[in-house]
Amino acid sequence: MLHTSTTSAFVSRKVKNTVVKNTVVKSILLIPLVIVLLTVSAGFAYVHWSKGGTGAGLYSRHWSPDPVQGYWDPDNFYQSTEIVKGLFKAEQCIQCHEEITPGIVSDWRASRHARSEEPIYCNACHGNDHQQLRLPTPDECGRCHAKQHGEFRDEARHGFPSHVLAMERAVDTKHFADKPKAELQSCVQCHSVATKCDSCHTRHRFDAAEARRSEACITCHSGPPHPDGETYFASAHGKRYLAEGSDWDWSKPLTKGNYKVPTCAYCHMDGGRHQVAHKSLWKFGLREINPHTSQNRVLRENWIELCSDCHDEKQAGQWLTELDRERKSAWRKLYAAEDILKRLRGDNLLRPAAGERPPYPMDWLDSLWPRERIGFFEGQASAFYNVSAIERDYFEMWYFENLGAYKSAAHGNQAGVEAGHRKMAASLDRIKSKSDELRTLKKVRQKAKIKSDLPGAPWAKGAYTDYNREHN
Amino acid sequence: MLHTSTTSAFVSRKVKNTVVKNTVVKSILLIPLVIVLLTVSAGFAYVHWSKGGTGAGLYSRHWSPDPVQGYWDPDNFYQSTEIVKGLFKAEQCIQCHEEITPGIVSDWRASRHARSEEPIYCNACHGNDHQQLRLPTPDECGRCHAKQHGEFRDEARHGFPSHVLAMERAVDTKHFADKPKAELQSCVQCHSVATKCDSCHTRHRFDAAEARRSEACITCHSGPPHPDGETYFASAHGKRYLAEGSDWDWSKPLTKGNYKVPTCAYCHMDGGRHQVAHKSLWKFGLREINPHTSQNRVLRENWIELCSDCHDEKQAGQWLTELDRERKSAWRKLYAAEDILKRLRGDNLLRPAAGERPPYPMDWLDSLWPRERIGFFEGQASAFYNVSAIERDYFEMWYFENLGAYKSAAHGNQAGVEAGHRKMAASLDRIKSKSDELRTLKKVRQKAKIKSDLPGAPWAKGAYTDYNREHN
Amino acid sequence: MLHTSTTSAFVSRKVKNTVVKNTVVKSILLIPLVIVLLTVSAGFAYVHWSKGGTGAGLYSRHWSPDPVQGYWDPDNFYQSTEIVKGLFKAEQCIQCHEEITPGIVSDWRASRHARSEEPIYCNACHGNDHQQLRLPTPDECGRCHAKQHGEFRDEARHGFPSHVLAMERAVDTKHFADKPKAELQSCVQCHSVATKCDSCHTRHRFDAAEARRSEACITCHSGPPHPDGETYFASAHGKRYLAEGSDWDWSKPLTKGNYKVPTCAYCHMDGGRHQVAHKSLWKFGLREINPHTSQNRVLRENWIELCSDCHDEKQAGQWLTELDRERKSAWRKLYAAEDILKRLRGDNLLRPAAGERPPYPMDWLDSLWPRERIGFFEGQASAFYNVSAIERDYFEMWYFENLGAYKSAAHGNQAGVEAGHRKMAASLDRIKSKSDELRTLKKVRQKAKIKSDLPGAPWAKGAYTDYNREHN
Repeated sequence: MLHTSTTSAFVSRKVKNTVVKNTVVKSILLIPLVIVLLTVSAGFAYVHWSKGGTGAGLYSRHWSPDPVQGYWDPDNFYQSTEIVKGLFKAEQCIQCHEEITPGIVSDWRASRHARSEEPIYCNACHGNDHQQLRLPTPDECGRCHAKQHGEFRDEARHGFPSHVLAMERAVDTKHFADKPKAELQSCVQCHSVATKCDSCHTRHRFDAAEARRSEACITCHSGPPHPDGETYFASAHGKRYLAEGSDWDWSKPLTKGNYKVPTCAYCHMDGGRHQVAHKSLWKFGLREINPHTSQNRVLRENWIELCSDCHDEKQAGQWLTELDRERKSAWRKLYAAEDILKRLRGDNLLRPAAGERPPYPMDWLDSLWPRERIGFFEGQASAFYNVSAIERDYFEMWYFENLGAYKSAAHGNQAGVEAGHRKMAASLDRIKSKSDELRTLKKVRQKAKIKSDLPGAPWAKGAYTDYNREHN
Repeated sequence: MLHTSTTSAFVSRKVKNTVVKNTVVKSILLIPLVIVLLTVSAGFAYVHWSKGGTGAGLYSRHWSPDPVQGYWDPDNFYQSTEIVKGLFKAEQCIQCHEEITPGIVSDWRASRHARSEEPIYCNACHGNDHQQLRLPTPDECGRCHAKQHGEFRDEARHGFPSHVLAMERAVDTKHFADKPKAELQSCVQCHSVATKCDSCHTRHRFDAAEARRSEACITCHSGPPHPDGETYFASAHGKRYLAEGSDWDWSKPLTKGNYKVPTCAYCHMDGGRHQVAHKSLWKFGLREINPHTSQNRVLRENWIELCSDCHDEKQAGQWLTELDRERKSAWRKLYAAEDILKRLRGDNLLRPAAGERPPYPMDWLDSLWPRERIGFFEGQASAFYNVSAIERDYFEMWYFENLGAYKSAAHGNQAGVEAGHRKMAASLDRIKSKSDELRTLKKVRQKAKIKSDLPGAPWAKGAYTDYNREHN
Repeated sequence: MLHTSTTSAFVSRKVKNTVVKNTVVKSILLIPLVIVLLTVSAGFAYVHWSKGGTGAGLYSRHWSPDPVQGYWDPDNFYQSTEIVKGLFKAEQCIQCHEEITPGIVSDWRASRHARSEEPIYCNACHGNDHQQLRLPTPDECGRCHAKQHGEFRDEARHGFPSHVLAMERAVDTKHFADKPKAELQSCVQCHSVATKCDSCHTRHRFDAAEARRSEACITCHSGPPHPDGETYFASAHGKRYLAEGSDWDWSKPLTKGNYKVPTCAYCHMDGGRHQVAHKSLWKFGLREINPHTSQNRVLRENWIELCSDCHDEKQAGQWLTELDRERKSAWRKLYAAEDILKRLRGDNLLRPAAGERPPYPMDWLDSLWPRERIGFFEGQASAFYNVSAIERDYFEMWYFENLGAYKSAAHGNQAGVEAGHRKMAASLDRIKSKSDELRTLKKVRQKAKIKSDLPGAPWAKGAYTDYNREHN
């Protein structure tokens, strides 16, 4: 018995051990599971909470919209004017607004909306309760224009940059809350291409013929870092447009043989397809790309086919090769500049160093652990403000001069290629000379035993930091 | 008697004393009066004398007009061509000039002057003695076009900047005599808007339809510091103008409903009123203003009413608020830069310091008592020449980048707002970095006991000083 | 006999001496002649050999053409597409290309080539063997358009710059081989005006009316250093063109009375003469010229006569005088800047000094004997790359700001004159400040006994040297 008992005791202990062990194993398995579940839930809850502010996007709690934002992002922020009370019929809108705002009525009268057999009146898009008016969103337009809307939405597959994600990705970045709002407004007006259709089709005419013209695109697609308008109109294509375009029949679809020269939409929205992102090969010139990946080879073939509407295929291919070479040459200059800056940073020669200036408001990590950053890093364009002049030079070299050269090469504006590369070369010379100066000065300081820190340094406050925030 | 006599003597002495005292008091009162009268008279005489030179304005004795000035300021300087002799009748002018200068005749034939029942021939404005021809001044045109001329003259009430005072105020400033004349000529061509009507109405067609187009304004209203043309044509308004404007009926008056988008004149000369100055609210962006003074509130309401020709009143008001915010943001940057410069000046770190360079020729006070000056000071724009690079940076930040941002915000050119603020931010970074450098260098100099003065300094001579004067 | 013999011996010795002397003299005369002949022959042979590479011009052995070069310089480099085989008749070309490239066919149909009684079909210029197609050169066009071609060729008399020598002189310069080819391509596209006629007359319409419009010129004549388009369109002439040009009858010849304002071609190719170079007076603003040499006086008279198509002769002359003064003022600034740089160079204060950077690839002399060079030196524009920032500043001051001011003054764009001179003044201020800094730093270095040479200097490699050559 004793034996048995001991045995059973032994067995029971063994069982107990196994149970304990199992429980321990289970607990060990369970704990991280629970942690993961909790973390993920917390993460979701945090993101959800983050989006719950008066603004929009991931940083919605850090900014509140200016009233004018309602016109740029009506779905989120439009508040109807409440001066006039009542429900109105279609003809009543026209009758009254013919007096108040005759321009928009005459535009509407000239539109297909007015001239179709069953006219689309104001109330179809704006509602008829004058205290609950709405501004139409792309979804509203898409109720009738399903094909175009579907193509437009399809851009999302390609990520950003794309038209359809322009607003969403804008409000989801840190510098949306960092940057003084008065300046942000200039960004948002163009990014609103995602949230309303009249960026390209001027209300209330909504003319396809208008949108086919390059003028429709260049309100936004102009100026650094995307001088599309300037480079197109400076090309041989653009010059012929300028000379003859006012006599062309813009009611024709954007297909082979209908236009003397290509326009913005002819190439980027060929056949009227409302999807621009699927053609992106060189990624705006922001990064060096390999133009010969299998995917990019397909894109090249698409471009060559398009150019062949007018030109010899062989010539089209050779032009693309020129563009590749231009890009390679640009990146050589950029890498040379970045290299110099990294060495200066490594030798602690750039002021303000990390920690010598206030952190960017949204960058809590940076306030705990200040890091040096040279070159492009996504989502924090504000990191190029309140920095040394030489770093700023590099930023402009990359973001403006380089991208200007790229767009010029892509749009056939030879003077722009020259200008971009000439400016990059000048920036590089400036960066080199400044590097020489900083290093000489350091030697002298060391000899004279003078520390670099200065009282009353101007970096303590600055743009895009606490200094000039507008409590966005 | 004695008593009497002594009394009378006493009295007479008292009277005498009083008389003496009165005379003294009178003299004391008289002397400053005479001095004031003499001084004022002398002042008037001096100003009168100053204006008596071969030039015009307060500094007329310091410059003489180039012959071409006669075409820009005919009242003061035009000298008739004397090649042809004789008195000519209206038809004779036409007959001869049809051969010699057919372009101006064909322009005249297309004008209302030619097509009215009683045609206005050449001699009506130019006279008929070919050796005593005159170029018509605004007053000459005003003989018939009294309403427009009256409105134009009425701008004077608002001071400068205004069209009607453009020439007068130009020649009344010191830098008119300081600046090399070859460069001044580029200023005067636009300032001649005050002294001849064909700045806007091309001779000899003088077409109202032409002047309604934005092209008529932008020969002058372009380029820094007033990029009106660039910012308008880059806006959504401007793009529609570019695409469709050549098909519009420009014979229509500038009133509600007649134009698809506003043009320069539609907003600034609404209803065709030849008075632009009364609408000035933000003072060209040159100074920070309070947009909410009672006077400015009235101006705001005027603008909102104008925008309401096409837009919702509420939206118009919100756009103006955006403009206010943009201005505030710009001034933050400008003040930050000015502050750094003032500190550098205070610490004697900017070269050339006052006195290290030749005084501006017209600034006799400066030659006696050299003063440091940072920031904007009226009437002496030449004070921004032959100065340290960092001061020049600040000048350009204020006068070009800031004003570019302002015009962009006011005209709805979002990319221009971004560009202006981006450039100001870059200038501020440059100014900060340079401040760091100058302070470090000073420390090093002090340690090494090296004075800052350098032999052969390049500032001894320089632009806008004695160096390159052309004996204007 | 003896006597005779001695005499004769003497005589013969004398004769012999004379013969020897004569031979020596002859040899002495002959040797340099032979050397000269050999050298000249060797020179010719060397030049001939130099031109024998895969490229073109004096440096043809140092670069090989990108395939696309065939479209810009067809005579040297075009290789026919070989996809399609066969000999085709005129109508067959049309039939097939109506489908493949309808745009060029419709342009041809609208051309005088197609609409003349005996149409000029594709094969007339391209041949009819599809594997041996050629692109027409100016000589090809000249077979029919002899007058225009003759005038065009006649430009050669005036040397470079001229259209007819644009390509030849481009490939004959050192920096054609120095410069990264990707950038060169942007230059060559415009220089191809020498090697094909469709730079101005867009293929396949070849419309004289198109070439009369300023748009035809400004694909190339825009941007620094030749902002012809910008300055023309910013002038009063240009503004009227912009407002009204689309309504003008461009089929009219470029003669007096046919156009409201002058265009590029109206002034520079008056009467349609295809010879632009004979009017060059101010030499592009590249050098200071004396406008009053006897030759230049003739050119002035020509210009004044042209301006007199519309303006008073006296006024035209006064405008030219203004242009002279503008030029003088510009050169004062340029000389002041050059002077400062030369002193800095003399005091060995500019880095990289000669020899501190790799020589330009084509400049073998520089690799043996590094020379300092400040200012303009022909045929080696690449010498402005990989230089100190202050030298680069001077280069831009001279080549862009100065030339911009010149073109503005010549084309009547007052804001451009102001901008050019303002920028030159700012550059001069920057150069002066930098000079101060470099001199102060030198003093400090001397006191602290620190040499200027730095380890890891950034100049060891650089643009236009061995660093980023693309084995052109």
